[in-house]
Amino acid sequence: MVTEKNLSRPPLAARLKSIPPFRVMDIVEKANRMELSGNDVIRLEVGEPNFATPELVTLAAKEALDLSYTRYTDSRGIRPLREAISCFLSHRHRCEIKPERIQITQGSSAALFLAFSACLESNDIVLMSDPGYPCNSRFVEAAGGIVKRLNTDIRNRFHPTQRQVSEAFEEQFNKALLLGHPANPTGYCLPKELLKILINDCKAKQSHLIIDEIYSDLVFEDYVSSLFLGCDHWVIGSFSKNFNMSGWRLGWLIMPDWAVEKTNRLAQHLFICPSSIAQYAALACFESKTLHSLELNRLELKKRRDFFVPALSELGFETHGLPDGAFYVFADASKFTNDSKLFCEKVLSEAKVSLTPGIDFSNSLSPTWIRFAFTQPIFRLNEALIRLRKFLNANL
Amino acid sequence: MVTEKNLSRPPLAARLKSIPPFRVMDIVEKANRMELSGNDVIRLEVGEPNFATPELVTLAAKEALDLSYTRYTDSRGIRPLREAISCFLSHRHRCEIKPERIQITQGSSAALFLAFSACLESNDIVLMSDPGYPCNSRFVEAAGGIVKRLNTDIRNRFHPTQRQVSEAFEEQFNKALLLGHPANPTGYCLPKELLKILINDCKAKQSHLIIDEIYSDLVFEDYVSSLFLGCDHWVIGSFSKNFNMSGWRLGWLIMPDWAVEKTNRLAQHLFICPSSIAQYAALACFESKTLHSLELNRLELKKRRDFFVPALSELGFETHGLPDGAFYVFADASKFTNDSKLFCEKVLSEAKVSLTPGIDFSNSLSPTWIRFAFTQPIFRLNEALIRLRKFLNANL
Repeated sequence: MVTEKNLSRPPLAARLKSIPPFRVMDIVEKANRMELSGNDVIRLEVGEPNFATPELVTLAAKEALDLSYTRYTDSRGIRPLREAISCFLSHRHRCEIKPERIQITQGSSAALFLAFSACLESNDIVLMSDPGYPCNSRFVEAAGGIVKRLNTDIRNRFHPTQRQVSEAFEEQFNKALLLGHPANPTGYCLPKELLKILINDCKAKQSHLIIDEIYSDLVFEDYVSSLFLGCDHWVIGSFSKNFNMSGWRLGWLIMPDWAVEKTNRLAQHLFICPSSIAQYAALACFESKTLHSLELNRLELKKRRDFFVPALSELGFETHGLPDGAFYVFADASKFTNDSKLFCEKVLSEAKVSLTPGIDFSNSLSPTWIRFAFTQPIFRLNEALIRLRKFLNANL
Repeated sequence: MVTEKNLSRPPLAARLKSIPPFRVMDIVEKANRMELSGNDVIRLEVGEPNFATPELVTLAAKEALDLSYTRYTDSRGIRPLREAISCFLSHRHRCEIKPERIQITQGSSAALFLAFSACLESNDIVLMSDPGYPCNSRFVEAAGGIVKRLNTDIRNRFHPTQRQVSEAFEEQFNKALLLGHPANPTGYCLPKELLKILINDCKAKQSHLIIDEIYSDLVFEDYVSSLFLGCDHWVIGSFSKNFNMSGWRLGWLIMPDWAVEKTNRLAQHLFICPSSIAQYAALACFESKTLHSLELNRLELKKRRDFFVPALSELGFETHGLPDGAFYVFADASKFTNDSKLFCEKVLSEAKVSLTPGIDFSNSLSPTWIRFAFTQPIFRLNEALIRLRKFLNANL
């Protein structure tokens, strides 16, 4: 309705209109309300395991507070942290990542936005997989780009195929390709051969390749980081998932060396610097005691996967093998529903288990998929399975 | 030089080419190097006073760490903090700012970027003052907009005049106007009447008005916040300067109520949430003990201003009256130089006082201006004046 009042309002940007709602946020809010009124909800919707920030990190943060390390830092991030990440990645992935190539960022969100801002002109096209992490589109749009989603297939473990990428390039020039390794919501890693091919294809097409490796230390099978395979693409890293520091908002961007100077300068202007306390705290991530505790967490996640995924499958959710990493299993519930949003709402109300409907990740898949985040201990996952079984029995 | 190697590299975005270097960063780096080799440099270049983060804030951060408040928060920011800011602003500026209108952000940088992203289409024009804070242009460009700078005059205290704004609108439609209140690098506040007029003019033109009030609690004269004068514009706030929390990266954006829902959603996608620890710590900013200590800091800054600015003027820097707020004095050094960058470099080398050349803030002013940040205690400012006098005597 046009009234005198809203006539006088300046219009908001069109990009705001195209943002789809996070359906999972309705679930999160409802689950929060249920918990507040005394319900025991098993939370398997948000990508945040029950592990606490490592103890030495917390201690290092307190020390940083005592030392008043609360001022602006170098906009690239403090040198010791860039050196620590450099050592860690170089050692883990058997490659040399110089500290100069590392820009510390306010979470991987800022790293993704920075990478796209450094690569894209207005209306440049970026290829990414469908299903995929929904916010990725926002970073592209925020930088003026246009997202072209490649509809992937469970038969290819939801990876884009070489042919799909080639065909997309035959159709038109694409400025960048974004890959998740492992991917969200599937937990699948890219096979080494496919990764190699896509790295080479992007190079041949003079297209930027951006690889999101924020779950790279939570992998249960053989894993080859893209860092091992080339140095002309961009890699996103984060302390959130690998180091249980989600609320600290700290991540990094590894740049091709020919892009370092200009990207650093853009980061300086856009962000000033990442949190000083988080940076000093994160130094303790690379101490052996911390790395040991993180390894125990990884093994715990593997146990959860090996327990939970076959059991889900037995209940009738199609799980298509085990995820390689992260803490997600993306399963088809078509045996039970053709509307996973409604299904997840019902499961929450009746079984008190919170899940993420797959439509948050996909425009093209049938609306029957669900993401389960095995972020809770096994006894809770077991309880979730009992509740799900009871729910399914009552509703079928 | 085009070689086979760089032929194969995808091009970087044009926006990276247009980023002017921060000249002050050369000064910062050189000053850091000088300090590392044992020199006593008086640092008046960066906008960061010598005050520490308030004690209760540090304690609250430690408590948050002990309570493991290290997970994602509500993407708008935690409710208690939004309520605390709401109370504080409503009381201080005699107006009602509902918590719903407040989005907590990762510093004012993220607030500015969010505001421009919510307002601008590709190629929309944004008016802002010259001289002004250089990063502002980056936020506009990052959101796809184009900056049009209004060349202001010291006779109008470097504020844009109503006539200038009108003429800019006659020439073409401008989607937004950005104002600093108080402004950086001048420390001047907008007169209430001018502010009222510009608020009304923007409304009449259906143009967004964004007002940066990150220094609003560090004002030494009468101050009327734009929040008192209207509720249809955007206001940027921050914990960095007002609360001595620069390294914590925490700020906020106050939105017109008709823009809240969509802007919240964009923030959720772009940032996930601000730092949880910084948010819980910042709650202690509004305790009376903290507010009292901050008031003492403000009075200390006023003393520094009243001591330093007239003394600079006496040395021959044209200071054009006292700044109203912040901790900057923007002075014309044309009596001594026609190249303030060279002058600042020489002052650093010979007098060991670090200053910011005015060209960082302006494309249009004569290159004779310098920003002095009176961020150091009076005895240090006094020492800086002694060194400057000696330098000027030796070089004139």
